[in-house]
Amino acid sequence: MSLLNSQASPSIQICRIMRPDDANIVGNVHGGTILKMIEEAGCIIGTRHCNTQKGDRCVAALARVERTDFLYPMFIGEVAHVSAEITYTSKHSVEVQVTVLSENIVTGAKKVTNKATLWYVPLSLQNVDKTIEVPPIEYSRPEQEDLGKKRYEAQKLERLETKERNGDVITHVSLSEPYTVAFSQSSLIHLIGPSDCTLLGFVHGGVTMKLMDEVAGIVAARHCKTNIVTASVDAINFHRKIKKGCVITVSGRMTFTSNKSMEIEVFVDADPLVEADKGKYRAVTAFFTYISLDKDNKPLPVPPLKLNGEEEQKRFEEGKARYLQNKAKRLADKERQP
Amino acid sequence: MSLLNSQASPSIQICRIMRPDDANIVGNVHGGTILKMIEEAGCIIGTRHCNTQKGDRCVAALARVERTDFLYPMFIGEVAHVSAEITYTSKHSVEVQVTVLSENIVTGAKKVTNKATLWYVPLSLQNVDKTIEVPPIEYSRPEQEDLGKKRYEAQKLERLETKERNGDVITHVSLSEPYTVAFSQSSLIHLIGPSDCTLLGFVHGGVTMKLMDEVAGIVAARHCKTNIVTASVDAINFHRKIKKGCVITVSGRMTFTSNKSMEIEVFVDADPLVEADKGKYRAVTAFFTYISLDKDNKPLPVPPLKLNGEEEQKRFEEGKARYLQNKAKRLADKERQP
Amino acid sequence: MSLLNSQASPSIQICRIMRPDDANIVGNVHGGTILKMIEEAGCIIGTRHCNTQKGDRCVAALARVERTDFLYPMFIGEVAHVSAEITYTSKHSVEVQVTVLSENIVTGAKKVTNKATLWYVPLSLQNVDKTIEVPPIEYSRPEQEDLGKKRYEAQKLERLETKERNGDVITHVSLSEPYTVAFSQSSLIHLIGPSDCTLLGFVHGGVTMKLMDEVAGIVAARHCKTNIVTASVDAINFHRKIKKGCVITVSGRMTFTSNKSMEIEVFVDADPLVEADKGKYRAVTAFFTYISLDKDNKPLPVPPLKLNGEEEQKRFEEGKARYLQNKAKRLADKERQP
Repeated sequence: MSLLNSQASPSIQICRIMRPDDANIVGNVHGGTILKMIEEAGCIIGTRHCNTQKGDRCVAALARVERTDFLYPMFIGEVAHVSAEITYTSKHSVEVQVTVLSENIVTGAKKVTNKATLWYVPLSLQNVDKTIEVPPIEYSRPEQEDLGKKRYEAQKLERLETKERNGDVITHVSLSEPYTVAFSQSSLIHLIGPSDCTLLGFVHGGVTMKLMDEVAGIVAARHCKTNIVTASVDAINFHRKIKKGCVITVSGRMTFTSNKSMEIEVFVDADPLVEADKGKYRAVTAFFTYISLDKDNKPLPVPPLKLNGEEEQKRFEEGKARYLQNKAKRLADKERQP
Repeated sequence: MSLLNSQASPSIQICRIMRPDDANIVGNVHGGTILKMIEEAGCIIGTRHCNTQKGDRCVAALARVERTDFLYPMFIGEVAHVSAEITYTSKHSVEVQVTVLSENIVTGAKKVTNKATLWYVPLSLQNVDKTIEVPPIEYSRPEQEDLGKKRYEAQKLERLETKERNGDVITHVSLSEPYTVAFSQSSLIHLIGPSDCTLLGFVHGGVTMKLMDEVAGIVAARHCKTNIVTASVDAINFHRKIKKGCVITVSGRMTFTSNKSMEIEVFVDADPLVEADKGKYRAVTAFFTYISLDKDNKPLPVPPLKLNGEEEQKRFEEGKARYLQNKAKRLADKERQP
Repeated sequence: MSLLNSQASPSIQICRIMRPDDANIVGNVHGGTILKMIEEAGCIIGTRHCNTQKGDRCVAALARVERTDFLYPMFIGEVAHVSAEITYTSKHSVEVQVTVLSENIVTGAKKVTNKATLWYVPLSLQNVDKTIEVPPIEYSRPEQEDLGKKRYEAQKLERLETKERNGDVITHVSLSEPYTVAFSQSSLIHLIGPSDCTLLGFVHGGVTMKLMDEVAGIVAARHCKTNIVTASVDAINFHRKIKKGCVITVSGRMTFTSNKSMEIEVFVDADPLVEADKGKYRAVTAFFTYISLDKDNKPLPVPPLKLNGEEEQKRFEEGKARYLQNKAKRLADKERQP
């Protein structure tokens, strides 16, 4: 049991009942609520593990979340069980794999709704700019370490690539024509308060992801005017820390629509308000995929996105490429299974 | 593991990181935060167990909590682990035993901070006044059932006894005549927590206004017993700052009613608790106007306010003057528009 | 546009979806929710503006809100857009004008629901009692500055006037002698919202217990003016259910003090507001024991309770009996352990 000997068994479970505020008006739990719970579990297990050695005390900071699929919607009144396990450690990072299960405590029905992979980096409590070394975990079989190393190298490469994409800026306030990018484009701002932050005074990755999902959801609802739910989130990289007292602007725009799905690009820009000299910076970016559901939770067709100009056309093509790639990957995964 | 086969092993664990909002200004987690987590665990396991049979679906409702000791304080940044287990069932009630453990994920220290026993009764989802039968649990040793039965009989006796003590009433339960000022007069207290405050550690004006509106709304609802909404707020001045850790008392009383509106005066008094020498002070005052709406959101007539004494009469006249002035102003504004 | 160059164009927009907890049981969003969003926008833009110069860093503190009308009700599921703009600056204050728009993202309908004017004063982060100078804004036309100046003078006058009105006091501000029961006696009211409730629409026992602990803690802190923590809670019985939409009054009074502990009796009274015929009822009662801690978390002596009248004397004796009984029980438990 995780509670008694955390070192021997590096896993943790968190769970709670889904409340009305966790869900939309139809009762579907927001993807952001789940993402926030996933990250809380990851942060606990990562921080616990990196403090099982002598030397500096530290807090695990979220560096990246791999692509995450939402397999089934969850509902108000159900219990979300989030279990997390450390599956790989490099010198300076920890891989955490998380499984989310929904339990209807009235009917007894249980479903695996998500599987997620998160990467954490331990930052020293004494000096937040110092990354400390991660104690290695023990693998029950040697090939587990090899596979982990491959995942580690792959995500490292991807993180470098996305750093370049980040110059772009979203514009808002739309009086535009329906189904265009400008029409559904949205943004919100949030002042980072104490309960949003870790012991180091930087925002929890999960708090950011929840707000990103909220904006993406508004963009999706504006576009198709129906009940919408998160279907997946592409890998998210957390390039820079965000401090308590910052104002963050979270902006979203639609980049691509298929017959039954919408892709929304979300940006997080941080503004340190009081430290005016530091200026704003782009802290996070990600792609969310949403689907539209009818009353029986069956997918509905999505109105096609109307494109204006070369920029939008280019982003649409890139979105299409991601869509086809994910589709191919899903098919390949299915075939591989017995 | 509890997750996979809940029927065989009727136990559950919930855990989460303690945040600034869960604690007082010194960093001690509020007992109430722990009590709430304990009850959430009890409700989940009780509801789950009582639905492991055919027939009516149900929700476990808390009937009693046995004496609970807080053995050690818990702190911000620690993880609270709450594990719950069903330890006895009678025909219509479930006993849940809960253990709370604090884990410092930075130092690795763990302490049992609480042990609690809760009694639940399953209420039918079809008919909330119907208590359904509880499926029996299996005991690993027969004496467990006997001990449980003794605890059950003991608490049953105590519950009957306390029912008698309950005639007693504290001052504020108003026994006044309907439609008087005294009848609807209300007040709340709120402890200013970290998330209520700016970087300077003083409460956000918006937090105060939200609480003022809450009290005004309760006064209005008590007066007219219908759906009520805020129609306007007169100018509000924030004369004095309110510091983190203060307790504020927000009080409201009705001052005036027109045919279709109610004016409520709201006061905010701050009490710096720990800095005793400073004493309480009046921090903010304001007038809120409420209207009463029917099902189609159309204004309803408001019962006239019954006045007692000169003071109330004077305040009513002043309210009337404000009402007439605003009405005149609204008309003038309308005429000025082309 | 606010996102790109905040200094040139001092405006900001915040938006979010209205959730069940933002509204009453009929679905109308509370005026207080809107007021809080308005002030958050004002605080951000005011703070940002006053930090666009060299010298002390500062936070904008709300000094006054002009009369605010609520033109249309807003509903759960709608998006509230709050846009704020700086419209005038004096030497030490900033005027912010705010417009609130409700957007039904499903029908596309939009309505202006509020217009508000707020006045902020920048307080230094280094010295909270110091007001710093406000950098001037640029006006596109000179008459804008003149009109702003008129509004500034008018509000200044009104603020002075209201200062005088504030001597008046509503009943509950206690003027009793320290260490008496009346001195520390406290009560709060809370409107039971959707997230407080189970699937059956009745409040979670844990929510009630959290509020009871909050009141007990305030009573204890008022009595001894130090850091206090919950030491234990006597058995609590939940005699009657409390429905969504009820207002509960949670009241606490000190009944007993030993050398190092305080016993507080807490009552929960439910008022079904809209179902007037049902009337208020006592739903829960309990005894909380608190201790006072010094900086090293060691128990401090507690000032003895001053008693007035037979009733208080009687309750004190009963509290003493409970105290001695628990003490005896603890000792017996200790001896029984090997």
